[in-house]
Amino acid sequence: MGGDLASYDRSLIFGVYSTINVIVFMSGVLIFMMQAGFMMLETGGMSRKNAINNIFKNFVDACVCGIFFYWFGYPILTGDSILVDWMREMGFAHTTENTSPGPIVTLNDDISLFFNFAFAATCVTICSGAVTGRIAPYAYLFFGAVFSALIYPVVAFTVWNPDGMLYGVIHDFAGSLVVHGLGGFAGLAGAIMLRPRIGEFNFGRGQIDSYRFAGSSISNAAHNIPISALGVFFLWIGWYGFNAGSTFAAGFDLSEIDLSATQDQPDMIANAIFEQLIGGFGQVVINTTLAPCAAVFSVLAFFMVTQNKYNISDLMNGALAGLVGITANADAATAPIAVLIGVLSGAVYVIAVIFMFRAKIDDPIGAFPVHGAVGLFAGGMFALTTGDMELGPIVFGTQMFYGAMICLFGFLSALVTFWVASRLMYVIKKLGNSQYFDYGPMPRNHLRVTPEQELAGMDLELHGQDAYSINLTAPGKAKTTF
Amino acid sequence: MGGDLASYDRSLIFGVYSTINVIVFMSGVLIFMMQAGFMMLETGGMSRKNAINNIFKNFVDACVCGIFFYWFGYPILTGDSILVDWMREMGFAHTTENTSPGPIVTLNDDISLFFNFAFAATCVTICSGAVTGRIAPYAYLFFGAVFSALIYPVVAFTVWNPDGMLYGVIHDFAGSLVVHGLGGFAGLAGAIMLRPRIGEFNFGRGQIDSYRFAGSSISNAAHNIPISALGVFFLWIGWYGFNAGSTFAAGFDLSEIDLSATQDQPDMIANAIFEQLIGGFGQVVINTTLAPCAAVFSVLAFFMVTQNKYNISDLMNGALAGLVGITANADAATAPIAVLIGVLSGAVYVIAVIFMFRAKIDDPIGAFPVHGAVGLFAGGMFALTTGDMELGPIVFGTQMFYGAMICLFGFLSALVTFWVASRLMYVIKKLGNSQYFDYGPMPRNHLRVTPEQELAGMDLELHGQDAYSINLTAPGKAKTTF
Amino acid sequence: MGGDLASYDRSLIFGVYSTINVIVFMSGVLIFMMQAGFMMLETGGMSRKNAINNIFKNFVDACVCGIFFYWFGYPILTGDSILVDWMREMGFAHTTENTSPGPIVTLNDDISLFFNFAFAATCVTICSGAVTGRIAPYAYLFFGAVFSALIYPVVAFTVWNPDGMLYGVIHDFAGSLVVHGLGGFAGLAGAIMLRPRIGEFNFGRGQIDSYRFAGSSISNAAHNIPISALGVFFLWIGWYGFNAGSTFAAGFDLSEIDLSATQDQPDMIANAIFEQLIGGFGQVVINTTLAPCAAVFSVLAFFMVTQNKYNISDLMNGALAGLVGITANADAATAPIAVLIGVLSGAVYVIAVIFMFRAKIDDPIGAFPVHGAVGLFAGGMFALTTGDMELGPIVFGTQMFYGAMICLFGFLSALVTFWVASRLMYVIKKLGNSQYFDYGPMPRNHLRVTPEQELAGMDLELHGQDAYSINLTAPGKAKTTF
Repeated sequence: MGGDLASYDRSLIFGVYSTINVIVFMSGVLIFMMQAGFMMLETGGMSRKNAINNIFKNFVDACVCGIFFYWFGYPILTGDSILVDWMREMGFAHTTENTSPGPIVTLNDDISLFFNFAFAATCVTICSGAVTGRIAPYAYLFFGAVFSALIYPVVAFTVWNPDGMLYGVIHDFAGSLVVHGLGGFAGLAGAIMLRPRIGEFNFGRGQIDSYRFAGSSISNAAHNIPISALGVFFLWIGWYGFNAGSTFAAGFDLSEIDLSATQDQPDMIANAIFEQLIGGFGQVVINTTLAPCAAVFSVLAFFMVTQNKYNISDLMNGALAGLVGITANADAATAPIAVLIGVLSGAVYVIAVIFMFRAKIDDPIGAFPVHGAVGLFAGGMFALTTGDMELGPIVFGTQMFYGAMICLFGFLSALVTFWVASRLMYVIKKLGNSQYFDYGPMPRNHLRVTPEQELAGMDLELHGQDAYSINLTAPGKAKTTF
Repeated sequence: MGGDLASYDRSLIFGVYSTINVIVFMSGVLIFMMQAGFMMLETGGMSRKNAINNIFKNFVDACVCGIFFYWFGYPILTGDSILVDWMREMGFAHTTENTSPGPIVTLNDDISLFFNFAFAATCVTICSGAVTGRIAPYAYLFFGAVFSALIYPVVAFTVWNPDGMLYGVIHDFAGSLVVHGLGGFAGLAGAIMLRPRIGEFNFGRGQIDSYRFAGSSISNAAHNIPISALGVFFLWIGWYGFNAGSTFAAGFDLSEIDLSATQDQPDMIANAIFEQLIGGFGQVVINTTLAPCAAVFSVLAFFMVTQNKYNISDLMNGALAGLVGITANADAATAPIAVLIGVLSGAVYVIAVIFMFRAKIDDPIGAFPVHGAVGLFAGGMFALTTGDMELGPIVFGTQMFYGAMICLFGFLSALVTFWVASRLMYVIKKLGNSQYFDYGPMPRNHLRVTPEQELAGMDLELHGQDAYSINLTAPGKAKTTF
Repeated sequence: MGGDLASYDRSLIFGVYSTINVIVFMSGVLIFMMQAGFMMLETGGMSRKNAINNIFKNFVDACVCGIFFYWFGYPILTGDSILVDWMREMGFAHTTENTSPGPIVTLNDDISLFFNFAFAATCVTICSGAVTGRIAPYAYLFFGAVFSALIYPVVAFTVWNPDGMLYGVIHDFAGSLVVHGLGGFAGLAGAIMLRPRIGEFNFGRGQIDSYRFAGSSISNAAHNIPISALGVFFLWIGWYGFNAGSTFAAGFDLSEIDLSATQDQPDMIANAIFEQLIGGFGQVVINTTLAPCAAVFSVLAFFMVTQNKYNISDLMNGALAGLVGITANADAATAPIAVLIGVLSGAVYVIAVIFMFRAKIDDPIGAFPVHGAVGLFAGGMFALTTGDMELGPIVFGTQMFYGAMICLFGFLSALVTFWVASRLMYVIKKLGNSQYFDYGPMPRNHLRVTPEQELAGMDLELHGQDAYSINLTAPGKAKTTF
């Protein structure tokens, strides 16, 4: 066999098609598992009285994203939307042409859509952690619709589509900036607008005074850490899909494969093709393993030095920080650099947690420190992979500048989205004063549930359920009455 | 390269073999995850006092199915059983011959067996949800053995094997009727025969009177909703295997691929083959995502209009209803049709729940509304994919008629199976009155555990364990005494 | 097409490369899920007061293993370490040369590393179950580092690397001996050195007297069985990766494929290659399903005969025993032999549990009975697959002898490692008496936490957290103070 190396036989091309599509499909399933991971992480890490509401938010936002990303988001991402035409007119997008001489193997369009849906759902869900425990469910679902239909797709288009303004300008392998930075800073905006949960800081800046003797609970403590820990494992597992799948998300240009040195041995040729196809993939998998391991040690060292108590939630968030940190760089880092990125990510996480605590911004499960702060910094850490003392600072500056722009865009668009949501909630309540949309007497902050609902817990108030009827002698089920 | 397009080179055929087997193996693993999903859904959605018993049932039935499906069920499915010969004689099965001119790429026999085992285990487990909380464990395991060895394989053979009577007559892509309808209606039969749990409706139709003051718990409330929600996510994740894997379960006929338009470009040829192999697969994945999303909105709308409380269990069951609804149609529906099917599935679920409540049939976690009612209706909804106002009603009628026959078969065979199980339990108890099979004084309904066992909880009575020793000051472990 | 069968075209070779690498990558992810499985199994199966500590141990040991296996363990495994050179000099390792005429398709080095990391992490974590509930966290992490950097790699090299002393001498398909026997016997050593938890046997051999009235809890009861059951499902799911992935871990020699009978039909040729590549894989998957099913029946029969109560923890451990039992033999056993191996594995598990109870060795979640005892016996059960009454006993003897050597090596090296850890803990405490390493007043057994810490629970003492704040009226979160 052998044949002319300049031409590619259909069997080989088919093999490449098959390989990348199978991996990307399985990666999409792994990323979809992250939805379950975020659900568990938030539910277990929050108070018992809001357990069902956390499940509700994390579950329904995936459904919102499924519908809105399919009809509005994905066409933007692929450049087939009116919005992108308008962006081109305004100069926010290019029109490039494919000039590759060789066959380009692309993903099946539906597989690509599924994979990108999983990304969009992750971006939306990241924000959920920062606003949970007090946000009105409709306001959050409105935010989810806007972010999956518009904000995330525009950013992803700009960075990853060859027609995007930042394509080739910054390096963000699997979305430290596009997914995590964007979502994390959006969460920060939400957390600031919503103000802290009652009882979180100094008893909620005086809010608590009128409620503290009402017999209601003010506990915001994590109520189920084992399920939270399982959530972190799901995220780690899902991240293999997140990063490994991204290796092939843009397709594969067969003409980039160098076959010159191995013409006479078919097994060497196949190996060369394979190594160029899968080699980077393997490296990504190893980096995605080493960085979170190292980040955990970073956080562990912090606890060792400062307090001699090992808070498991912070250690697990440390692993997530390491994963966010390597997400921008998993294709470029060597193993030692991956470890270094992990260690630095853990440190950035700790600093961001302290900042949030001092600034009295209530981010119940640490979405901003993990995804926002580390996500932004991860863009800059790409400079480490250059291994060049002169080029490094320039790369760092470029990455941090555009990364900050992306994060700022996320922050501002979340501010606008939540403000609109707040106005919509007001209108709904005014119009309504009805049994359909009755959130009780209006608080000043329309994004929030009422203080009464917050104190009693949204599970009882909005869902009519208790997450755990764990007493052997609990009263009978309150049946839904039809 | 290139070569004669009429002949298929071994590398290409190998690539197709490899692709479908890898996907079906991974799909089998995903479907096996559904066993864990059902376990969590049922355990969390039921009362604490039966948590371990629910785990026991869901765990051991998978083991029963593994053994019985391997030796009895799978040979029926493939047509290599004496039973099938008998069916052929009786006219319940055909003998067809393969007339395809081209190479047919089939699954490895063991991979196919594993995939089908996962289907059979799902069908059995669906029933478990409807009978849980009061069924005697042995009676349920007997049912599991009969269903995985006989009932499910006969139905699956009839619909999916080319020799089956309904092959080509009805369309049931991945088993809305064969798996979900069959299992759901079997569960309905079981739920009717067993009568409600004590305290479920009007205090159990008077049963409660003699027990209510005994100091025992009568709580049937869901005791761990977060783990139940995780179970629903596992089912959704597993469904990607369920539907996507089914694309290739029957193998792939290479001669069906049309290569005529693309003869001169090897990459176009490879792409054409790939798109025809994987294209439908991608569509299945997207439909399997959109339908549950839409179904959740359907149930959400119902809650918005009727009660302004969002019961998370019903919302999550709504997603499952959407998944059941698309299971028959995932290969045929376009995205808008998938959404429509999802919305209708959610509505059918809500109607079925109301029916079950009014009919006072106790189906603790809604197995019949989700799998039975929606499963049957999903068969009919295939008519929507024709997009033809004349053909539609005919297809609807055909699908619903044969679908109803399958469901009726499931209902009747479950009645018989449970009746036999009931007699066997009686014999065992009579023979025994022994320490081996001592279920205490015999109740009239031999399928059920005794009222004393039910009230105290099967965990303590049958397993000698409490699922949660969550008090920091709980007494020491009662060790097993050897 | 067709071509000369003696030469292998690059497309075909590429297809094989792609297939084995994709499966091994996905298998690695499945095995990594076992880390979450072990975490849940241990956490749920132990007392509430140590829930967070169990999560900590299982989470951080994976991170320790990631770092240490990458830099020290993997080079030993592949024979590229100074240690292996030294072993060669000492005669503990050979130098073999590859003499295969045909192309050998090997795994990508990073994919192989990831897969082997998952194995190493499993081996370390197995031990964790036996020592949990009283071991000082640092001592355990030290053990984890030594085992993943040194002990496991040396054993895996010896058995699986062609240069290893036992390569070809014993058959251990996916590590019943190398992973489970080694880890299980190491756990036994740890459990013996640590002595039982307070209150486990006769109130801890008198230890309890001074503490029993201190108002502290002495409960060692399993506190969350549903999450423990989910852990077992994760392990079963992960085992498909463990065994199925192992089919290809050593690469694939294309020259071993016999194509002679099928020269004229390209689809037959492709099928032949595929069956020889994947056929064994399918068999492995089926065996990995049947053995645990059978083992559960074995344990169930034991309960039926002896006590009429079905302890779910023992049933689930039975399934794990079946999985351990088939691990050495999954490639060699036929389905009936797999069932027989499962039944015997269940019996060995039960006997080992009774032995541990009588010997008053405290192995909280049964790591030794499941992994150690069954793992060793699984090596011997390979004799069943010979199906030869004369050869069988010889194979049994050989397998058991070398298997016992491996287990003994694990036992002794764990003794040494834990002894060194104990000395290190002593030095740290002496040096320290500091806030950094303050484990309170020194107990005699430096491997253990202090009795005060053990009684109050490590969650509060070492992590400052309670795993469940499940009361609706729990006090506010004790914030970390920065």
